[in-house]
Amino acid sequence: MNLLEPLFRWEAIEDLFSDRARVQGMLDFEAALARAEARVGIIPASAAAAIAAKCRAQLFDTDVLARASALAGNAAIPLVKQLTALVGNDDKEAMRFVHWGATSQDAIDTGFVLQLREALRLIEPELERLSGALARLAEEHRATPVVGRTWMQQALPTTFGLKAAGWLDAINRHRERLTQTRRRAEVTQFGGAVGTLAALGQQGMDVAKALGEELHLTLPDMPWHGQRDRVVEVATVLGLCTGTLGKIARDISLQMQTEVAEVFEPAGVARGGSSTLPHKRNPVTSAVVLAAAVRVPGLVSSMLSAMVQEQERGLGGWHAEWETMPEIIGLAAGALHHLTDTVSGLQIDVTRMTENLDLTRGLIFAEAVQMALGSAMGRLTAHELVQAACRQAQAEKRHLREVLEQNAAVTQHLAAEDLERLFDPMQYLGAAENLIDRVLESHSSHKPKATSKKV
Amino acid sequence: MNLLEPLFRWEAIEDLFSDRARVQGMLDFEAALARAEARVGIIPASAAAAIAAKCRAQLFDTDVLARASALAGNAAIPLVKQLTALVGNDDKEAMRFVHWGATSQDAIDTGFVLQLREALRLIEPELERLSGALARLAEEHRATPVVGRTWMQQALPTTFGLKAAGWLDAINRHRERLTQTRRRAEVTQFGGAVGTLAALGQQGMDVAKALGEELHLTLPDMPWHGQRDRVVEVATVLGLCTGTLGKIARDISLQMQTEVAEVFEPAGVARGGSSTLPHKRNPVTSAVVLAAAVRVPGLVSSMLSAMVQEQERGLGGWHAEWETMPEIIGLAAGALHHLTDTVSGLQIDVTRMTENLDLTRGLIFAEAVQMALGSAMGRLTAHELVQAACRQAQAEKRHLREVLEQNAAVTQHLAAEDLERLFDPMQYLGAAENLIDRVLESHSSHKPKATSKKV
Amino acid sequence: MNLLEPLFRWEAIEDLFSDRARVQGMLDFEAALARAEARVGIIPASAAAAIAAKCRAQLFDTDVLARASALAGNAAIPLVKQLTALVGNDDKEAMRFVHWGATSQDAIDTGFVLQLREALRLIEPELERLSGALARLAEEHRATPVVGRTWMQQALPTTFGLKAAGWLDAINRHRERLTQTRRRAEVTQFGGAVGTLAALGQQGMDVAKALGEELHLTLPDMPWHGQRDRVVEVATVLGLCTGTLGKIARDISLQMQTEVAEVFEPAGVARGGSSTLPHKRNPVTSAVVLAAAVRVPGLVSSMLSAMVQEQERGLGGWHAEWETMPEIIGLAAGALHHLTDTVSGLQIDVTRMTENLDLTRGLIFAEAVQMALGSAMGRLTAHELVQAACRQAQAEKRHLREVLEQNAAVTQHLAAEDLERLFDPMQYLGAAENLIDRVLESHSSHKPKATSKKV
Amino acid sequence: MNLLEPLFRWEAIEDLFSDRARVQGMLDFEAALARAEARVGIIPASAAAAIAAKCRAQLFDTDVLARASALAGNAAIPLVKQLTALVGNDDKEAMRFVHWGATSQDAIDTGFVLQLREALRLIEPELERLSGALARLAEEHRATPVVGRTWMQQALPTTFGLKAAGWLDAINRHRERLTQTRRRAEVTQFGGAVGTLAALGQQGMDVAKALGEELHLTLPDMPWHGQRDRVVEVATVLGLCTGTLGKIARDISLQMQTEVAEVFEPAGVARGGSSTLPHKRNPVTSAVVLAAAVRVPGLVSSMLSAMVQEQERGLGGWHAEWETMPEIIGLAAGALHHLTDTVSGLQIDVTRMTENLDLTRGLIFAEAVQMALGSAMGRLTAHELVQAACRQAQAEKRHLREVLEQNAAVTQHLAAEDLERLFDPMQYLGAAENLIDRVLESHSSHKPKATSKKV
Repeated sequence: MNLLEPLFRWEAIEDLFSDRARVQGMLDFEAALARAEARVGIIPASAAAAIAAKCRAQLFDTDVLARASALAGNAAIPLVKQLTALVGNDDKEAMRFVHWGATSQDAIDTGFVLQLREALRLIEPELERLSGALARLAEEHRATPVVGRTWMQQALPTTFGLKAAGWLDAINRHRERLTQTRRRAEVTQFGGAVGTLAALGQQGMDVAKALGEELHLTLPDMPWHGQRDRVVEVATVLGLCTGTLGKIARDISLQMQTEVAEVFEPAGVARGGSSTLPHKRNPVTSAVVLAAAVRVPGLVSSMLSAMVQEQERGLGGWHAEWETMPEIIGLAAGALHHLTDTVSGLQIDVTRMTENLDLTRGLIFAEAVQMALGSAMGRLTAHELVQAACRQAQAEKRHLREVLEQNAAVTQHLAAEDLERLFDPMQYLGAAENLIDRVLESHSSHKPKATSKKV
Repeated sequence: MNLLEPLFRWEAIEDLFSDRARVQGMLDFEAALARAEARVGIIPASAAAAIAAKCRAQLFDTDVLARASALAGNAAIPLVKQLTALVGNDDKEAMRFVHWGATSQDAIDTGFVLQLREALRLIEPELERLSGALARLAEEHRATPVVGRTWMQQALPTTFGLKAAGWLDAINRHRERLTQTRRRAEVTQFGGAVGTLAALGQQGMDVAKALGEELHLTLPDMPWHGQRDRVVEVATVLGLCTGTLGKIARDISLQMQTEVAEVFEPAGVARGGSSTLPHKRNPVTSAVVLAAAVRVPGLVSSMLSAMVQEQERGLGGWHAEWETMPEIIGLAAGALHHLTDTVSGLQIDVTRMTENLDLTRGLIFAEAVQMALGSAMGRLTAHELVQAACRQAQAEKRHLREVLEQNAAVTQHLAAEDLERLFDPMQYLGAAENLIDRVLESHSSHKPKATSKKV
Repeated sequence: MNLLEPLFRWEAIEDLFSDRARVQGMLDFEAALARAEARVGIIPASAAAAIAAKCRAQLFDTDVLARASALAGNAAIPLVKQLTALVGNDDKEAMRFVHWGATSQDAIDTGFVLQLREALRLIEPELERLSGALARLAEEHRATPVVGRTWMQQALPTTFGLKAAGWLDAINRHRERLTQTRRRAEVTQFGGAVGTLAALGQQGMDVAKALGEELHLTLPDMPWHGQRDRVVEVATVLGLCTGTLGKIARDISLQMQTEVAEVFEPAGVARGGSSTLPHKRNPVTSAVVLAAAVRVPGLVSSMLSAMVQEQERGLGGWHAEWETMPEIIGLAAGALHHLTDTVSGLQIDVTRMTENLDLTRGLIFAEAVQMALGSAMGRLTAHELVQAACRQAQAEKRHLREVLEQNAAVTQHLAAEDLERLFDPMQYLGAAENLIDRVLESHSSHKPKATSKKV
Repeated sequence: MNLLEPLFRWEAIEDLFSDRARVQGMLDFEAALARAEARVGIIPASAAAAIAAKCRAQLFDTDVLARASALAGNAAIPLVKQLTALVGNDDKEAMRFVHWGATSQDAIDTGFVLQLREALRLIEPELERLSGALARLAEEHRATPVVGRTWMQQALPTTFGLKAAGWLDAINRHRERLTQTRRRAEVTQFGGAVGTLAALGQQGMDVAKALGEELHLTLPDMPWHGQRDRVVEVATVLGLCTGTLGKIARDISLQMQTEVAEVFEPAGVARGGSSTLPHKRNPVTSAVVLAAAVRVPGLVSSMLSAMVQEQERGLGGWHAEWETMPEIIGLAAGALHHLTDTVSGLQIDVTRMTENLDLTRGLIFAEAVQMALGSAMGRLTAHELVQAACRQAQAEKRHLREVLEQNAAVTQHLAAEDLERLFDPMQYLGAAENLIDRVLESHSSHKPKATSKKV
């Protein structure tokens, strides 16, 4: 296990991108290719069986492959050699048909798609688990007032449920994106040296179709050796997703500040302690997720840069993908996994949320007063009047309501009970619950709705 | 006009992102908001009319707005002030209701979405125009043999039609992506200061719906002030698209090299000349498109980084979008526009393509021979035999066919006419035409097909 | 003036990168080249004078240049044509010698270096002005205690002076870097079409030397048409600098949060107000600087990606620099300029800093107690004892000192007055003043010192 | 060994960034800290010895550390616990003093600096080895004419020596940069929890100085927990260096194209073969180096983004460095190592270089003719005359010299022998040798010279 793996990553995903898994992905391609060619009648069924029997990663020495890859320029070339030798030990006839008609990129790309599919099969339910946890927060705290903050300043009351709904709303979209992206990404790669399938003569398409069926992967319109958008799109979707995870982590860490203290990552033995400060409780998950949100954008840009690949099969751009894609997947999935755990156990201090609504001595209700006055005196006049009252309240360290109660221009329009109501956070939440309902509904139906269609 | 604009950009798109257009976008929001609020009965219809009458960018002094924005932190704040004053000049009553219940981000984001929609309305048909040009190339050159090159080395024959089909295949997917992305991106932004619509009391949702109808934009499940994935997704899709454009430009520039000379950007007076070299004909469009492909990935990473926005409305991340998104759109659209023109007029030297197939003295037919021998002697043995023959041919500067004709291990399996056929490029194109047909079919049906569904 | 320019940029810098300035940069090269060639005796002195007389940007129509650039692939090619025509109007003889022996990249690169030099001549003193403001803060607040925060949690006391010294310390290094970078960047570019100066026969080096003297630029060892590290290094140094500016802005915005309220951006009429919230005072400069810190890294990565330029003069990579470099310089300089103003007028609430030291009921002094106990009972035992006391204090909402006073294991080692001292922030500032002195000393001497040299 | 490690990386560097090496780095800090504190008299000499005795990575279980790190948020926290327990097994007294006065970041950052120093100690001589190989090429081929290519088109003759000198020229600058950067980067990190060294009372600075001496690292002006420019600068310098390596690899791969065939990566058994094409010889090193040049820019942007760290010690940004820096170092060093080997064994086909000078039927000598005519008829007139002749030559597939010989406007000024000389590549190399000498001289003196100082 890598020293930093449990901190940043999700073990289940890391297993899918181990060297062994990478080798197995390529071998799965080779086995499926042999079976497909046997079905089409190009190679004997016995040869396919003999080849498939050796397509097990544990039969291969990764160190030997690694050293040979350095000379060959990729891992599939020595892998095919070793596989051929292994098959030949038992079956000289079958040996002839290893890797028949394929190119190394066919094995590497298809192998990677197989790994990717497994990864997305883990990531999708994890996204669903995060959605569920967020939906519960949104539901449970639909009427929990909390300070809404903009530009990192207290602004107006909102509810913690609506904050959670905002997070959920983005995740709803990511789930939709991922579904659409998977359709484009989970395809075979099979074209032979320059993508014509020439080595298979007239039977290329038949083999290609059979190969897709063997692997339960879609057959693409044509090979995509030099057209990398399928893979890079996955990187971008995970990048978008990581951006949202980072936003959630940023919010949690801001609310967890000593001075705010509204929300806490779940506590636990040895969790978030310091090597020197005995009182510390650090937001470890937020750190991990924010680190991913810092790292993934640069990795996505590498993938986008790598798209400019030369001619039928490129030089360098393709190679740049091999470590970068697992890195993106690993960081995004790790952040997702850890944040899901943390959101599921998030500790909410509702009392402190209420207390914080009072910190400004009423200033965060200034807009409510302004709107009430505005219908009488116009928005801009009201804005200026209330702004002056705010400054007076701040200068004199008095409550805004008190200042307003002594202002004739205000009391002319607003009675004492009006003012009382205007300073009640529960009275100034607008459509918050309605909005939460909309998001929860999309969550339940598994897709964001489009209420008012474009005309 | 900016000095470098005609070189890198597409004028129609640049117009959409001028300062004037940016101001008009925000004003379109303010006018629609007033009309929506009048429909819902919050403000008088006359006020809405009076406000809308002033929502014309040419009434505003951009320099004054610019200087005031530097203090306010965004352009909407001084814009609302100027608009209020303008409306007040004619109608003191209406003046009260300018920007009623909205926040500056509502105006800025919705205004941007309106600009974006116009941009995508230009980009989509341009993508279609590029597709059409590529489809014509694929069709016309479906049987034009050309050297296929991998790792920047001559590999095997392919057809120029299949090269074009590969480019088209990626563009087919980008068109599908763009359609899906637009559904998520073309929505209103409307939430008031912290996204609750509190300033509108019980009528927030009614106004929100009416606003969407006014602008023919979808009403999202909830405001997305702090959730930026909608906008950033557009950046990523344009990033993917630019990657493909860069790949096409790279291919053209490689084929246009003096030593290859198979394909040329259209010639024209003063096009691609040099300040000092009289014989030069530079691939100007390729340069422009490759420059975009170098620049856009970094800009996309900025957008992804900017997603980590704080709380209800963030600090800095949102601001980072304002110049970055137009930059991405402008570069992607510029590259698209120029490359479409160039592909539409691409000059193809079929004769040279044929000549280049002979450059290696038969080496690029080595795989064909190997496959023919392989079914007799096994792929790996054949690989080694042919590899040795290749080395001999190179060392002795002889044609590979000649070397093979003198090798008994070869002639034992292959007659002279077999060898002749094996060195005919038209005989070693495999499924090229079939693949072209598949791509053209998806092009015609406007979406990539999934021939063999996953089970 | 661009709508967002005053917000994000520094006008003085923007002027240096206007289209007019870009054209003038190239013309300055052409004029200097002519003078240099006259000095060497290649062209008549009268021709040089005639050429130089027309090298004024206002004589050129930028729109015409812009349209011609789109065909030519860069702006120097049509510029040379226009210049030649202009010179020819007055002096047919001189007309012959325009751009003699140069290539368009010579004009563009050298022109850019001249713009860059002017920009750095503004940035350097602005960095010095920021340093001065930070040094004053460090000096003035060398004994102002404030909460030190780690992982966004209150940790221990420190001083506001040391925080400012930390900011200054990084700026000290950036000034040193910039000096070193300028030496490599402020050089001429002059090589002719492929960098051999062949068009000047035996006199190439003499012209090159004279050209450097004319422009007061260093003559590099050889032309660097395809070697872009000189320019890209400037991008990276500005990127590093912007990172530090972003860090300072992050710190200010965190300290300016409503709940912390220790530090404020300077107030001003219309500064940081909201379009709807009358009480708001937004940290506008922090937003601007953080936006720059989000944007510049992606732009720097574009410059690094663009370095892979082909052969003697590249395709696309070079073009990618033309808008990216001014963007990086403009964002970095804008952030620097605005932050310098803000730091110079920063408002410090020392009272609130003191109050915030009490927020945790003594927990932030836990380490002090632990160290005092640790010398008696070992660091780890003390760590665990104090950690337990912290948890008890939190659970019971009591002051940590009170809890400790009732713990015999503590009072056995620490008397009441010991505990009192341990909870005095002024007693737990360690080497803070000493460290401030070290940083101020490096500031005064204009370079970071190396107290203890490596052996 | 990782499957892709030998392909992309340099084993010696990878060893320095193994988990074991990371743990050892932190332990080296802890040991040095104990010794320093013993020297200052804070802890007993026997304790320092007891602690240092356990500071050996092989005594630690990386898996246990890894799992504990996931809870603690970094690896130093559990490491200190394990170390304390280990020390305590033998010496209860010494156990008290483990990690005395330090914070986890002190151990992690200083440990990393120690790893980094070792890495740079390998990279510097490797850069020198590359310089040496390039210098030999420049020297050996100072008079080998080769086509100079711009915009990926044949332009003018140059020499292969000058191409190599251009590569060397950039490496000369990188060596200078690295020296300057190391001075800023190779420093201790030591500040305790918030950077005040408070836990050490009055003795903090004395310990800090002794610590620097123990580790042979410079003592910085103050701790830099939140100021990350030192580390990020190393990333940028390696990024610049990788850009140059990518440029060299791009050039080699372009010259190695089948159609150009001037330069070849060294051949070797199993080197650059294909899994299916027997005749292939792929430029494996170019692929590897270009992949690094695609990947490193995004990683550098991550490091720059990560600089915006909060307050005394940040959240997420710091964490983002831990895997990113080793990745940058590993990719840059791997590219450097492999390219150095390849450049050292580069195969040059001088004959082919000469043949390629003839490919355009004289067009690449067009500028020479133009310059010769230009002094008589003016540059622009000559430019147009020669341009027309070039077009005629191309259209009629004739040699340019032949066309010119039949043009009276030409023969009026140029005799047959003049024309012959103008079409001799050796006669049109300008200052090439002089420029090579300048670069070689800087190489020998270990720093780029500044011939003409700024005035």
